[in-house]
Amino acid sequence: MLSCNDTICAPATSVGTGAISIIRMSGPQSLRIADSVVRFRNGTASSSEGYTLRYGSIPNVDDVLVSIFHAPHSYTGEDSVEISCHASVIVVTKILELLIDAGARTAEPGEFTRRAFVNGKMDLAQAEAVADLISAGSEAAHRVALNQVRGKYSAELKSLRDDLLNLSSLLELELDFSEEEVEFADRDKLRSLLDETLTHIRHLCDSFHTGNAIRAGVPVAIVGAVNSGKSTLLNALLGDERAIVSDIPGTTRDTVEEVMTIDGIQFRFIDTAGIRDTSDIIERKGIERSFSSIQKAEVVIGVLDGCVPLEEIKTACNAIRSNVSTNQKLILLRNKVDAYDAIAPEEFPSVDRSYGILPMKYPAFGTYNIDPETLAHMLDVPSVIDISAKTGEGLDRLKKCLVGFYDSSDLESNGTLVTNLRHYEALSRAWKDLSAVRSGLDSGLTPDLLAEDLRSAIRELGSIFGEIAPDEVLGSIFGRFCIGK
Amino acid sequence: MLSCNDTICAPATSVGTGAISIIRMSGPQSLRIADSVVRFRNGTASSSEGYTLRYGSIPNVDDVLVSIFHAPHSYTGEDSVEISCHASVIVVTKILELLIDAGARTAEPGEFTRRAFVNGKMDLAQAEAVADLISAGSEAAHRVALNQVRGKYSAELKSLRDDLLNLSSLLELELDFSEEEVEFADRDKLRSLLDETLTHIRHLCDSFHTGNAIRAGVPVAIVGAVNSGKSTLLNALLGDERAIVSDIPGTTRDTVEEVMTIDGIQFRFIDTAGIRDTSDIIERKGIERSFSSIQKAEVVIGVLDGCVPLEEIKTACNAIRSNVSTNQKLILLRNKVDAYDAIAPEEFPSVDRSYGILPMKYPAFGTYNIDPETLAHMLDVPSVIDISAKTGEGLDRLKKCLVGFYDSSDLESNGTLVTNLRHYEALSRAWKDLSAVRSGLDSGLTPDLLAEDLRSAIRELGSIFGEIAPDEVLGSIFGRFCIGK
Repeated sequence: MLSCNDTICAPATSVGTGAISIIRMSGPQSLRIADSVVRFRNGTASSSEGYTLRYGSIPNVDDVLVSIFHAPHSYTGEDSVEISCHASVIVVTKILELLIDAGARTAEPGEFTRRAFVNGKMDLAQAEAVADLISAGSEAAHRVALNQVRGKYSAELKSLRDDLLNLSSLLELELDFSEEEVEFADRDKLRSLLDETLTHIRHLCDSFHTGNAIRAGVPVAIVGAVNSGKSTLLNALLGDERAIVSDIPGTTRDTVEEVMTIDGIQFRFIDTAGIRDTSDIIERKGIERSFSSIQKAEVVIGVLDGCVPLEEIKTACNAIRSNVSTNQKLILLRNKVDAYDAIAPEEFPSVDRSYGILPMKYPAFGTYNIDPETLAHMLDVPSVIDISAKTGEGLDRLKKCLVGFYDSSDLESNGTLVTNLRHYEALSRAWKDLSAVRSGLDSGLTPDLLAEDLRSAIRELGSIFGEIAPDEVLGSIFGRFCIGK
Repeated sequence: MLSCNDTICAPATSVGTGAISIIRMSGPQSLRIADSVVRFRNGTASSSEGYTLRYGSIPNVDDVLVSIFHAPHSYTGEDSVEISCHASVIVVTKILELLIDAGARTAEPGEFTRRAFVNGKMDLAQAEAVADLISAGSEAAHRVALNQVRGKYSAELKSLRDDLLNLSSLLELELDFSEEEVEFADRDKLRSLLDETLTHIRHLCDSFHTGNAIRAGVPVAIVGAVNSGKSTLLNALLGDERAIVSDIPGTTRDTVEEVMTIDGIQFRFIDTAGIRDTSDIIERKGIERSFSSIQKAEVVIGVLDGCVPLEEIKTACNAIRSNVSTNQKLILLRNKVDAYDAIAPEEFPSVDRSYGILPMKYPAFGTYNIDPETLAHMLDVPSVIDISAKTGEGLDRLKKCLVGFYDSSDLESNGTLVTNLRHYEALSRAWKDLSAVRSGLDSGLTPDLLAEDLRSAIRELGSIFGEIAPDEVLGSIFGRFCIGK
């Protein structure tokens, strides 16, 4: 286990094009080391009050401003300093060298926050959310992480655990008197309390799908037949030429991923190779990758080519649907509606642009004579959105549809979202334990067996905010942090 | 002119992978704006003492730590705050939006430092050096910039200007009495003072070549005949495969630049296309670029192929020398010494590896029978360094030679180096003015004409530390800064 007896230091800002860099130091020797490295204009760090700044100079390196914190009133809960210097790689490197020469050591990734947790400044769920807050790529992700850092999330889980402790004490009471074979606990009350808690935990577990997608960005696979316009759609969404576009079928061989934020929600669009039989080995690899990226997607956008005859569209639609699982969200698009504008006026001068005008005897014009509702009905899907990736027509409807999946009460009502896999797993295990208690109640299991499952569920919930946190768990959690946090 | 009456804000750290971001705000409204945006746990920014920190929360955004500075005790000399938040693009953006909503405006690049200059916290030369300190790419560049930020450089120029003011007052004295045609000022004293000052300024001007190279990195052109091993040498120096290497003559078409720091000095190596007659248009462009990169270089490394006969080497050497000007430093290398090892043992079993063994009748083996001193003599150059870019032999000697040019007393003795083009130009003009004074003294020019040139020289020196600084000069100086400085 990493000791908290030594003093750690690390750069807390990334050295890029900024004006200022911050170096953080925490531990019992921080103030003494600051005094040995910095020549303060007046006074010393050790003799300064907490929450004050001192101006000083580091010979041959830089002039610095030092923020002073006394334990326990600091981020880590230890004596700490933050050294503010010019944002130069050379200055930062030299200062770190001097601090290390004077007795500090380089901090491990996340070690400052780990100390904050160890010293009781925050619970484990809050500490984990610090990393999410920093890396939040969208407003929604930021909102969720901020709620967690501020302890709202932990508070909900703690109240859940209190419910279980309550249940547990009811059961323990029964245990004490079990020899007398008297059922003290009101079993109906127990049952209803259990059911409530189970529902609550189920709800939290269910929120992980959405929560994780919001935290990390919603993976959206764009799939469809070869040359249906998937790359053109991705480019239209992004507004630039990210993917290589050509008329040659099979242009996109690799999966292309681009991040875009719509209404505060981050989407990660994955362009995929068109699904078709091919002898090209590289293209076939791309197609295999298409299938695997469909599996990982939260939302699948199926692109149908409006220019091909109905039978072909049906085949393409079925190929897409057969690859989409029930817990994935599917949006079906009929692309290339611009082609209708292009062909209609000259060849059919009398045609107005409403659906249903082109007679079915012109199959070359694809499905443009079928309005989207009828087409959806024919394809046996809930809806089809008409778009032109080329002109941008219908893209707004598509974006609205995408956002609609997440702009739900989950986010608006500040409902608690589980975003962390570790928490999701602990909650799932707690749910399993409680289910066992629930069925045990019905099958007349003895209170001591029930109590054991209940205690296990309580432990699982406690592990989320770090009541029981083995060293290797802490290592894997804080190892994912950046240096200096 | 940018007003100092409003309050400016900007991110002061680059948002990359750090833990903390800092947002800077300066101006009369800073404390009020901080109070309206941040809910402090206790007290307010306005009521806090300078050089203290306050913890607070920005609703729906982040928890922050605010450093408070009262005018004139801040970087800018104005009321200022620095807001420390989580290093997230979203958090930083939201905080900046809130500050702007509350009355601040986004700072122009360098505007904080500009205000520091305007408020007399530093002179213009110091302010300019702040940008150099941040961007310093080597220890030497850092040392030079730090001296300038700390005012050592300004102090020397100010004492120089004092000398001129002294001269000027001697002349003015003479002016006052000129009608009586009495020469009050001791003309010999004047002459010797002028000569001293001229030498001093000349020395400062001369230091610009070195100073600028140290600040920006020393440009080093690697030139030589086609296939002499220039790209291999660059790769060997850098220790990786930066340039594309092949045995096909003319592989390097574009100029390749790589930065490397040796003993604290930064070198910018420019690989060039081999110089030869070619019909390939693209290659010819590369060769033209070679010539222009040679012109810009501070040091030219000429690579000679040790495997070709003496006459060919002579031609190659002359081609290189004819392109190197007298103020450039030239290092000549004989490359491919490994080839000697490769051919000698089998074909000449009796040969040991010392020079002078292979008889001249084997011209196919190039010049390996000639030791480097003799070769240098034959080529009429001071020295030739034997290397093998392939095996790395001799590279240490080359590096030592490169560093030797700059590891001079200039740097060690803390001699003042001019690193700034604006300063160099002002010094050059001052030198010209003073030279006019000097020759005017000899040719018996009237004191009032002499005094005018002298005043012009004094103005030029004053412009370096900003005594006279027109708005457009300030704009161009601070416009080169990063945002937030």
